[in-house]
Amino acid sequence: MTDLAMIEAAATRGGGHIRRTPMLSSPALDAIAGRRVLVKAECLQHTGSFKARGGWAALSALPKARRDRGVIAFSSGNHAQGVARAAALHGVPAVIVMPSDAPAMKIDNTRRLGAEVVLYDRIAENREEIGARLAADRGLTLIKPYDEPQVIAGQGTCGLEIAEQAAEEGVFEADVLVCCGGGGLTSGIALALEDRARGLRARPCEPDGFDDVARSLRAGSIQRNVSAAGSICDAIVTPAPGEITFPIMARLCGPGLTVTDEEALRAMALAFAHLKIVVEPGGAVALAAALFRPEAVTGAAVICVATGGNVDAETYRRALSGGSA
Amino acid sequence: MTDLAMIEAAATRGGGHIRRTPMLSSPALDAIAGRRVLVKAECLQHTGSFKARGGWAALSALPKARRDRGVIAFSSGNHAQGVARAAALHGVPAVIVMPSDAPAMKIDNTRRLGAEVVLYDRIAENREEIGARLAADRGLTLIKPYDEPQVIAGQGTCGLEIAEQAAEEGVFEADVLVCCGGGGLTSGIALALEDRARGLRARPCEPDGFDDVARSLRAGSIQRNVSAAGSICDAIVTPAPGEITFPIMARLCGPGLTVTDEEALRAMALAFAHLKIVVEPGGAVALAAALFRPEAVTGAAVICVATGGNVDAETYRRALSGGSA
Repeated sequence: MTDLAMIEAAATRGGGHIRRTPMLSSPALDAIAGRRVLVKAECLQHTGSFKARGGWAALSALPKARRDRGVIAFSSGNHAQGVARAAALHGVPAVIVMPSDAPAMKIDNTRRLGAEVVLYDRIAENREEIGARLAADRGLTLIKPYDEPQVIAGQGTCGLEIAEQAAEEGVFEADVLVCCGGGGLTSGIALALEDRARGLRARPCEPDGFDDVARSLRAGSIQRNVSAAGSICDAIVTPAPGEITFPIMARLCGPGLTVTDEEALRAMALAFAHLKIVVEPGGAVALAAALFRPEAVTGAAVICVATGGNVDAETYRRALSGGSA
Repeated sequence: MTDLAMIEAAATRGGGHIRRTPMLSSPALDAIAGRRVLVKAECLQHTGSFKARGGWAALSALPKARRDRGVIAFSSGNHAQGVARAAALHGVPAVIVMPSDAPAMKIDNTRRLGAEVVLYDRIAENREEIGARLAADRGLTLIKPYDEPQVIAGQGTCGLEIAEQAAEEGVFEADVLVCCGGGGLTSGIALALEDRARGLRARPCEPDGFDDVARSLRAGSIQRNVSAAGSICDAIVTPAPGEITFPIMARLCGPGLTVTDEEALRAMALAFAHLKIVVEPGGAVALAAALFRPEAVTGAAVICVATGGNVDAETYRRALSGGSA
């Protein structure tokens, strides 16, 4: 199971390959939230999201002989790029199984990183069967997006940086709001903070209607989403928290928060106007919660993670025209 | 005159008040440029541009009694915000004289930082006369945008960081492309690099038709622009290089580069897609030169400074719809 030593080892292996992303802030955002708002800008990470951390940690932890045979991942987005980049820099093959209706830009970006993209028909085909066959035929290792200890350790390196950067800002007691899909980043950060910053408490943030993690934390057991799609926050719409990530979150995290898609778009526009970072809808829900759910947050400061910036121009233009930029 | 000791002193005074902005990169941009492209993301600086450095350096260098009477600045936007922020954090009044056609966001942000904004007509009125009268009436100290040794020293702190970050990336020989108006940042960076990274050479970048610095460097004497307005790159349209900045640039800088407004917009869209940073038109000309003037650049890597990100949503949406994002 993932622990601080594994996270620290992942940070060491990531040296020179993973960016220490900045902690940003703006008086204008502080004024909206009614408290200091510190934004960990993981959209500035390699590949445009924190997923580069987990991908690197997982690949670099594999025994060389196994890694050299190659890796495989299922993803239509950020995990695909994180795994593809880590494989390319290790000089090993990566196969990414993507739905044929995935946005052309995401397929292009994954191919540009050197991965072999295998498209499947979301309706007629089963991606697990395709993946299992490819993995068996070629001896590939599956890199799961979140329910995998080394991936959690890699995402946890973001938590080590948050602990350091919050201390540099003089913040020792605060909620740390994290955009949450399967819980890899949230649980990794929670584990890092448990040892490195006891006054900082991770809290998952999700879109309304896809609050499986918030409901699971309330119920004390894994709850599933009713729908599999329907939020603009595609990057963090997952069926349920992971078998490995959920117990970590249940032990360490504060209650979950939810925001509307419209609030996520407004947060994107405010990040454009005041932080000068590009944030995707699913990467903006934590900032949206910090700004628009102040009553649900405690303390004089709040930290939120802007988890990714892989958004197409059309969606971004929509955020800027509707948001309060 | 500004020298390395003044730049280092400015860096010391800026500690805790000025961000060490990240050096970003993307394989996609490398592919376009045909060489490694490192982007110093000064759009992520406080106030959204490098001008926070010079403003802080100038204010913090004033004798307290003089500073306490207040300061005045002329600016279409970014210098305004840099001075306004420094004044607010020092608890002293700031008056900013801005052209009435400055981007609304820059005027709003300057007011939000607590400054008194005085608007003037760029064509019909003389801002120096307006400023001189206000300064005399109220005992304000004028903070010039570039032709002021402490401002150049402040901007030079960006050059200290570039020298360090380039070395971290293993880059010791490269052109450093800098979006250039009056030359404060370009000359400050050039001075820092002269001592700290002899293989890095600053080169000013300007919009076509407003290439006063490039022409001045070729002529060996200060040349003026014919027009005072007409480029989308408002932040760097200045009449001529400064009396102080020009000799520094003439001694230390390589030849200037120019790009079209359309290329600046394309660079903004590419920074959106691949770096996840918001860059304004005038802050994108160095990146545009790196990407679209590869034949004019030497070496296996190029460094460019994304100097600011203070752009209206409407202009940004235009960049995203016309650019190759």
